[in-house]
Amino acid sequence: MMIEQVRKENPLIHCMTNVVVTNFTANGLLALGASPVMAYAKEEVADLAQIAGALLLNIGTLSTEQIDHMIIAGQAANEANVPVVLDPVGAGATSFRTTMSKRILEEVKVSVLRGNAGEIASLLGVQATVKGVDGSMEGDKIELAKQAAKQFNCVCVVTGEVDVITDGSVVKTVANGHPWLTKVVGTGCLLGAVIGAFIAVERENLVEAATTAVTFFGIAGEQAFQQTNEQGIGSFQEAFLNQLHTLTDDQMKQLRRNEA
Amino acid sequence: MMIEQVRKENPLIHCMTNVVVTNFTANGLLALGASPVMAYAKEEVADLAQIAGALLLNIGTLSTEQIDHMIIAGQAANEANVPVVLDPVGAGATSFRTTMSKRILEEVKVSVLRGNAGEIASLLGVQATVKGVDGSMEGDKIELAKQAAKQFNCVCVVTGEVDVITDGSVVKTVANGHPWLTKVVGTGCLLGAVIGAFIAVERENLVEAATTAVTFFGIAGEQAFQQTNEQGIGSFQEAFLNQLHTLTDDQMKQLRRNEA
Amino acid sequence: MMIEQVRKENPLIHCMTNVVVTNFTANGLLALGASPVMAYAKEEVADLAQIAGALLLNIGTLSTEQIDHMIIAGQAANEANVPVVLDPVGAGATSFRTTMSKRILEEVKVSVLRGNAGEIASLLGVQATVKGVDGSMEGDKIELAKQAAKQFNCVCVVTGEVDVITDGSVVKTVANGHPWLTKVVGTGCLLGAVIGAFIAVERENLVEAATTAVTFFGIAGEQAFQQTNEQGIGSFQEAFLNQLHTLTDDQMKQLRRNEA
Repeated sequence: MMIEQVRKENPLIHCMTNVVVTNFTANGLLALGASPVMAYAKEEVADLAQIAGALLLNIGTLSTEQIDHMIIAGQAANEANVPVVLDPVGAGATSFRTTMSKRILEEVKVSVLRGNAGEIASLLGVQATVKGVDGSMEGDKIELAKQAAKQFNCVCVVTGEVDVITDGSVVKTVANGHPWLTKVVGTGCLLGAVIGAFIAVERENLVEAATTAVTFFGIAGEQAFQQTNEQGIGSFQEAFLNQLHTLTDDQMKQLRRNEA
Repeated sequence: MMIEQVRKENPLIHCMTNVVVTNFTANGLLALGASPVMAYAKEEVADLAQIAGALLLNIGTLSTEQIDHMIIAGQAANEANVPVVLDPVGAGATSFRTTMSKRILEEVKVSVLRGNAGEIASLLGVQATVKGVDGSMEGDKIELAKQAAKQFNCVCVVTGEVDVITDGSVVKTVANGHPWLTKVVGTGCLLGAVIGAFIAVERENLVEAATTAVTFFGIAGEQAFQQTNEQGIGSFQEAFLNQLHTLTDDQMKQLRRNEA
Repeated sequence: MMIEQVRKENPLIHCMTNVVVTNFTANGLLALGASPVMAYAKEEVADLAQIAGALLLNIGTLSTEQIDHMIIAGQAANEANVPVVLDPVGAGATSFRTTMSKRILEEVKVSVLRGNAGEIASLLGVQATVKGVDGSMEGDKIELAKQAAKQFNCVCVVTGEVDVITDGSVVKTVANGHPWLTKVVGTGCLLGAVIGAFIAVERENLVEAATTAVTFFGIAGEQAFQQTNEQGIGSFQEAFLNQLHTLTDDQMKQLRRNEA
């Protein structure tokens, strides 16, 4: 599973994502070597989802109508055996988001569910004791991810200082990443799209594909920070897109830090 | 009133803003040290507005439906004593914008109204004799700002070459800023959000908080231009985000130019 | 026909464009020296279209409702003799996009139609034998552009490795440009807006104005790549905006490569 494979196959990723991050997501996918298509209208989302390599559903700036269209797209993707990534942005923050995320999970077969610990916990109805998303909570995070993977019958990616990827039995963790990634809006949302690009070219092993995506993303953040140091997030954001564009498999092998 | 306070308290700013600037606004707030949340759906805006440190209403790409949702959010903010910033983008340019801005001002208690002289004049029904928004018009601008502050019972910020901040009696002016700020789309809109971040951490003195926000913003523009000189607005925009991220209170004290 | 003319006249370009590229389009127009206004509401689009120097209709993230509003704006522009640019993004990719593009062409008098060969072919109902949009297909592309120009009674700009601009009789080609322009999302969409800015200041000769716009755009891409080399598309995008901001007519004369 290699970044070169994504760059070679150039998978089409149909993104139904929020208005805040749509440009950054498209540029991130292009930098990576994938082909983004953003489309939201009920008249065409099924057509596009069925020819895509993966479909991303991100509820960041949801409305009831958009969720309806996401479900149309998701079910079309399911019929065509196109993998679906769900990013339940802000689930738990409002009951509307929790409810709508659950509705998608009930009506669409999701391949990969990506969120932070609080979002995933809210979907499980678990008390948000997982608030401090740091190293000491790692054990809890793995259990949380496994529980979500089993309940929703998908691969679950719980991101944080250490990222957890699991299908309910196999568990991978990724220690790569940089705190400044949380200072650029839409990095989490873009990660969902990047996972889509990797699973589009490796459908047989979703855990492996998602782990590589998360590792690649984290290393790009580390390298971007090293290059721009403390100049500020304007420079960091530009360097991060450059890294998505130029990072190689050899660099990844050297820099990856996977534990567990 | 210091930038360090914003960075320390990390206030949540609920932005209902236009699709052109939503990414830039979120990144600007993150750079500054605040936490943006963008949400528009009628089912959740009240929930978010009530837990925010401030609510921004920006009508840049308005629709009647979005204005309805802004009013729901604004009234919820009012109930919870959360300050509201209104940016009546393009008021006066179309009668639709003037009417919708007035509707918000009637139905929501606005804490800070921010616009250029033409926008504020249109809300007052004043003839737009204030067209040349330059130094020589300063007297008019102060009167205009005071009149709006009194009529709408809020702090009014009229931006231009010199910015005026007033609650109708106390008047502050800020001479900081750089013409290139008008060459990057959304700087005015971002300023509304930045004012939100400053008033969120200093609710007792809105004039002081808004003045600090405007000063900080102007200095960041000056520094960004100095760093990138004439390279172009691509570089300027990046440097400006870097400045929002790194500018200190000490630098502000040295560089601020407040008159009147 | 010169870039200085655009910078001097500072034309107002009313953009009804997609959510992915709206910020980039606005910043690109500002960099160039034009004034963008983005507005979508049925209550105001006619007012703005009639005072604009040009109107851009871009269907990148269309909905049926937005197309209705585009037609209101387009007809108002027609009444006021304001030129209209249509960018039928993704026509041919879904039947919805093809149908909606044709509907606009039937109900609005379009001055300039800009697309790639596949999009233009789909509007003509031509079989997409023009799939490889490279040099060897140039003959076909010119015929395609001429056919579209005649059928829709407009100037047609078919972009690709070599760009073709024609009103059905006069044919211009532009060899400037850089492959990395396809790696930044929204460059094609921005080009539509830039064509709008050039035709706004040169309404008498649309072929010449559009050719200058396309040439200018291509040279900016070449220069941006030279400046940033292989750093990645983050740096390329910033340098490209800088070039739109700073490129002069003298540089254009030296660097333009127009064939045919």
